[in-house]
Amino acid sequence: MTAEIRIALDAMGGDEAPTVTVQGALEAVKAYGMEVILVGDTDRIEQELGGQVPAGISLRHASQVVEMGESPSNALRRKKDSSVRVAVDLVKAGEADAVVSVGNTGAAMAMAFFVLGTVPGVDRPGIGTVMPSEREPFLLIDAGATVDCKPVHLLQFAVMGDVYAQTVLGRSRPKIGLLSIGEEASKGNELTREVFKLLESSHLNFTGNVEGKEIFSGTVDVVVCDGFTGNVALKIGEGLVESSVRMLREEIRRSTLGKIGYLLLKAGLPGIRKKLDYSEYGGAPLLGINGVSIIGHGRSNSKAIRNALGVAKSSVEKGLNRTIENGVRRTMEEVALAT
Amino acid sequence: MTAEIRIALDAMGGDEAPTVTVQGALEAVKAYGMEVILVGDTDRIEQELGGQVPAGISLRHASQVVEMGESPSNALRRKKDSSVRVAVDLVKAGEADAVVSVGNTGAAMAMAFFVLGTVPGVDRPGIGTVMPSEREPFLLIDAGATVDCKPVHLLQFAVMGDVYAQTVLGRSRPKIGLLSIGEEASKGNELTREVFKLLESSHLNFTGNVEGKEIFSGTVDVVVCDGFTGNVALKIGEGLVESSVRMLREEIRRSTLGKIGYLLLKAGLPGIRKKLDYSEYGGAPLLGINGVSIIGHGRSNSKAIRNALGVAKSSVEKGLNRTIENGVRRTMEEVALAT
Repeated sequence: MTAEIRIALDAMGGDEAPTVTVQGALEAVKAYGMEVILVGDTDRIEQELGGQVPAGISLRHASQVVEMGESPSNALRRKKDSSVRVAVDLVKAGEADAVVSVGNTGAAMAMAFFVLGTVPGVDRPGIGTVMPSEREPFLLIDAGATVDCKPVHLLQFAVMGDVYAQTVLGRSRPKIGLLSIGEEASKGNELTREVFKLLESSHLNFTGNVEGKEIFSGTVDVVVCDGFTGNVALKIGEGLVESSVRMLREEIRRSTLGKIGYLLLKAGLPGIRKKLDYSEYGGAPLLGINGVSIIGHGRSNSKAIRNALGVAKSSVEKGLNRTIENGVRRTMEEVALAT
Repeated sequence: MTAEIRIALDAMGGDEAPTVTVQGALEAVKAYGMEVILVGDTDRIEQELGGQVPAGISLRHASQVVEMGESPSNALRRKKDSSVRVAVDLVKAGEADAVVSVGNTGAAMAMAFFVLGTVPGVDRPGIGTVMPSEREPFLLIDAGATVDCKPVHLLQFAVMGDVYAQTVLGRSRPKIGLLSIGEEASKGNELTREVFKLLESSHLNFTGNVEGKEIFSGTVDVVVCDGFTGNVALKIGEGLVESSVRMLREEIRRSTLGKIGYLLLKAGLPGIRKKLDYSEYGGAPLLGINGVSIIGHGRSNSKAIRNALGVAKSSVEKGLNRTIENGVRRTMEEVALAT
């Protein structure tokens, strides 16, 4: 058997750290078999572990914590001994194969980019987010890593999304859609019209523009967009769901009929709840970083953390970054030949 | 009493034209008092009217119809006697005070822009869309008229949104938010960071960046963004709602408990259904066009058309475009002084 995969987990990141991070690590070791390095305040982590460090778990001390509201640039300058930074440094030093953090997303991203750089040939990283649809989940990339994009950045996001959909989500020949505001090649803005041409000259299974209206029906495996649009899209979706639920609850409180209906409906629909449960999808890969990095929601529970660790392991095992490197090289050649 | 306001209605636009357009016009004349000029195939319109043209309604023949899937540029070149084009021409000729169309949005927009031009001082038009929130509805501008924007375009959208929120939605000192991906001024892309500075130097009640997560909780009256982002946001919202409803229905079909729950819930919640009923909001104003233009969803029912005609009337009565002209002039001066 080969040496076990080692994953550095930012144990202090997230709303209920280190309780849920430690719990998630224990579940992941049991479920997938890996070594998890818990990085953070070792006293508090040992306390969570009940004074005993079980097999598959090791500890690494870090004296600082990056808070949720802290600016990434501040964290980068002043938090060099923070749990997330030390976890990233372990990857750089070759002591860990991947890093997982569910803390401050911007800080984790900035540190990974600054310390590890990008995969050779990749210009900018992109956050991939797995989202539910009526059929299979799809990957949206970029969800906010690179907000001002050139056409080539989106082309590379498409390659990274293609590789991730194949290697981690298990899709063969993933359908790639470009997020735009109409199906025809001529629809969209200057950026998407350029990207459309590039995608057409690549080997990718590019199916054309997709509109926000159709992505949740599950017509494509990968939705490509710039980080500004992707982040707005993601948060619009979140906000709409949260506001609808609040409005529904408010009105249900005022109606007995509604109250009974809601309870029956809730009991009757376990499947839809599972489908919309973000913790099933195991965090968001920060793709294009030279070192596997998975980031997750600050509200992650232990299942979400376990799944994020599982995704990290499988990304390492399947040589995600090497495949991205080859894919990007191939695509850049195809595009150069076509122009 | 002054002369009645005359509104040209594209009677052939929309999925169920001219049945619902004629019905909507009759309802509007009765509800608000106005003259509606029904533009289209007069034979078919007269048939809908039962052979009798009632008071407040007049007819204008147009031999062509722009289909829903037709490209705006094609419609502009080849459909010079289409119902929507003739309706726009009536405004240009001073025979109507406003135009309403629920047909092909792109074509209606292109024709209004081409024939009527913009309000003096306004560089680009913006579509305002009234959207529901947990509190009062808010206006999102631009929902897709101008996809490649310079900072000054968004500044002008903010002014137009401010004026519309005051004059038509009846808000005093509307709160203006800039759609971005974080609250701080430094968050966003190059475009929004520039716009942030411009909005700060204006007289507008600019409350800073807003995220997609919060807009549905109703924190601002006007959400400003470029037409690409706005259109994506709008369609993401639509798609999410439609897919959720389909998934819910699918699963409800398989569960008796769910089925009963759904029926009770539906019966118990008339308020939320009213809140989410787009036809309450009366179409989308094409702001910045030199002539009041209201466009609406192709699936508009007669109530939506009646409300769109009501909004058109009230925009004319309240001198919307003159107020926009003054507001834009004032704002451009403020911004020039600040830089």
